[in-house]
Amino acid sequence: MHKITVNLGMRSYKIIVGRNITGQLGKVLKRLNIGSDAFIITNNFLKNKYGAKLAQSLSAAGINFIFKTVLDSEKSKSIETASIVIKDVAKFDRKKKVFIIAFGGGVIGDLAGFVASVYKRGTNYIQVPTTLLAQVDSAIGGKTALDLASGKNLVGAFYQPRLVFSDVEFLKTLDNKQLGSGMAEVIKYAVIKDAKLFTYLETRHKALSSGSAHALMEIIGSCSRIKALITSKDEKESLGLRTILNFGHTIGHAIEAAGGYKRYNHGQAVGLGMIAAVNLSAVLGLIDRKVSERVKDLIELYGLPVKLKNVPLDKIIKAHYYDKKFSGKENKLVLISAIGQAKIVRNVRLDLIKQAVNSIV
Amino acid sequence: MHKITVNLGMRSYKIIVGRNITGQLGKVLKRLNIGSDAFIITNNFLKNKYGAKLAQSLSAAGINFIFKTVLDSEKSKSIETASIVIKDVAKFDRKKKVFIIAFGGGVIGDLAGFVASVYKRGTNYIQVPTTLLAQVDSAIGGKTALDLASGKNLVGAFYQPRLVFSDVEFLKTLDNKQLGSGMAEVIKYAVIKDAKLFTYLETRHKALSSGSAHALMEIIGSCSRIKALITSKDEKESLGLRTILNFGHTIGHAIEAAGGYKRYNHGQAVGLGMIAAVNLSAVLGLIDRKVSERVKDLIELYGLPVKLKNVPLDKIIKAHYYDKKFSGKENKLVLISAIGQAKIVRNVRLDLIKQAVNSIV
Repeated sequence: MHKITVNLGMRSYKIIVGRNITGQLGKVLKRLNIGSDAFIITNNFLKNKYGAKLAQSLSAAGINFIFKTVLDSEKSKSIETASIVIKDVAKFDRKKKVFIIAFGGGVIGDLAGFVASVYKRGTNYIQVPTTLLAQVDSAIGGKTALDLASGKNLVGAFYQPRLVFSDVEFLKTLDNKQLGSGMAEVIKYAVIKDAKLFTYLETRHKALSSGSAHALMEIIGSCSRIKALITSKDEKESLGLRTILNFGHTIGHAIEAAGGYKRYNHGQAVGLGMIAAVNLSAVLGLIDRKVSERVKDLIELYGLPVKLKNVPLDKIIKAHYYDKKFSGKENKLVLISAIGQAKIVRNVRLDLIKQAVNSIV
Repeated sequence: MHKITVNLGMRSYKIIVGRNITGQLGKVLKRLNIGSDAFIITNNFLKNKYGAKLAQSLSAAGINFIFKTVLDSEKSKSIETASIVIKDVAKFDRKKKVFIIAFGGGVIGDLAGFVASVYKRGTNYIQVPTTLLAQVDSAIGGKTALDLASGKNLVGAFYQPRLVFSDVEFLKTLDNKQLGSGMAEVIKYAVIKDAKLFTYLETRHKALSSGSAHALMEIIGSCSRIKALITSKDEKESLGLRTILNFGHTIGHAIEAAGGYKRYNHGQAVGLGMIAAVNLSAVLGLIDRKVSERVKDLIELYGLPVKLKNVPLDKIIKAHYYDKKFSGKENKLVLISAIGQAKIVRNVRLDLIKQAVNSIV
């Protein structure tokens, strides 16, 4: 079992990574003393598959609970769904010791975190992430979000959970696409911050792709440590340190948006965005071509696409300029100067960005 | 003109109180440098009455703007209205330098503050309060809120404005009921924290009730200073210091709720709540009967009711126990030990609370 702390003074919290640990969640929550009545936000699939186990763990610790299921879809990250859920929390909350459990992937984590952040100006919540993507990334760091028609994640708050509880057991039921989506983020952490993890990913591909619990715990532990460290230092993205987590995401988001969120999922788009970013790093002379090839090879090894198909370049560039990370006309890209070494570069010439995107076509 | 600072480190901001100062708002905003595009949330009455003046002030400073009107009703503090407004902000926000102006009373301030707190995980906003209640209380301190059917202010965030700009000129068009509602809060500040202000209110009743701009600026300045000080020390109500601002409000909210939010408005209910609180303080031997009578007399002087009619006692007690300030079975009441001296008392016996509420029937 790995235990990692996100250091935020009074608001510090633990990330627990383990195998088949859900039975212990009730006890852990009892000790945390964050409430006696759990409002569990999840989807039907997860409730049917793991609900009984979760329920048993909470009951054994004397924690009262209710399940609230939402659609297993990005559509659940809407103000409308949040509104319904908030009203249900208020109905459940007659005893005044309610706390919220986000039991699911990134969508449920973002939705539940948002609900917790605004209900009574802040209610305790914990993250029990059930996908690789959520375990290594979205469940940690307190970014909550809802989408608007005009853009993803445009509504939200910085609001930290009281615990992140990652059981790799949940990853067993994920399909390859979902695992690939998570692996893109794992590769991201390695490329920007952890050369050792990069080598681990290169050499332990077999174990990871066959679902070795030990190997999964290793990489989830490594990623959690990195995210915890960065979040501790720059909680609200105000110092720029957290910016490096956007590696591959700026162009990745643009690829997702330009493809109407249908052609490529988040992980695939981030994979392509990372290739564009390392190619741009090479064009700017920050790294050798060999390094960018090594990154591309690793992305390919984990079954992620390395060529962009059927999404027009000008659409990507346009979407790129509407990304919320841009203010006015300045751009700011996360590139690398070595494996494990991120570098923020400002005002990159548009023709070079185009050239980098073109390099993945 | 009064200038008061709310000290919150990087998030510090100024409260400006003056007479006929709206013409200068554009210039002040230009200097603040918080954005070039103002999304102004207001209602039709205010837009028709003062919109041109506000528009001129912004235009002269080169600030682009748009007006968004909502219903002049507590109903506007809903998730549904917030959702509509957020989507409109996103539509307006093509240039990425948007900020929000809350131009109105408490409802608009709470709604606009909430929208600002969640749009892009926090967008700059300023408060331009147009009622006495908002100028002395709700516009300061960063509490934003929406209502749910199950309770008022159950959704929200702590999110500070970048400026509070109080022009007493706006108070000219307020009716007596609106002024009374504000005066209840002014009296509250005096009773819990400012004996000098209390005497001022006793002796300057004529000037204040005839709308003397000088006297209004005096009391708004005094109240702003108190709220600024308390907010600076206990921004998120975590240290208990901010709790004293709930003086008269715990029982007041219960009176409002028990009357279905129709029989008594907020100020009237708070007035009655304050009388119950000083009576309870006297019953507990914290103050002399003469002191509680003096408070009651001041409340009466400003045209607020001092007798509760047609709201059953047991309904008030029940509503009281569902107040969000209670956790479990503990109660916590703000009482006084002298004029200008608040005192928090825990676990007051229910029969004494009943007796205090009974004393205003």
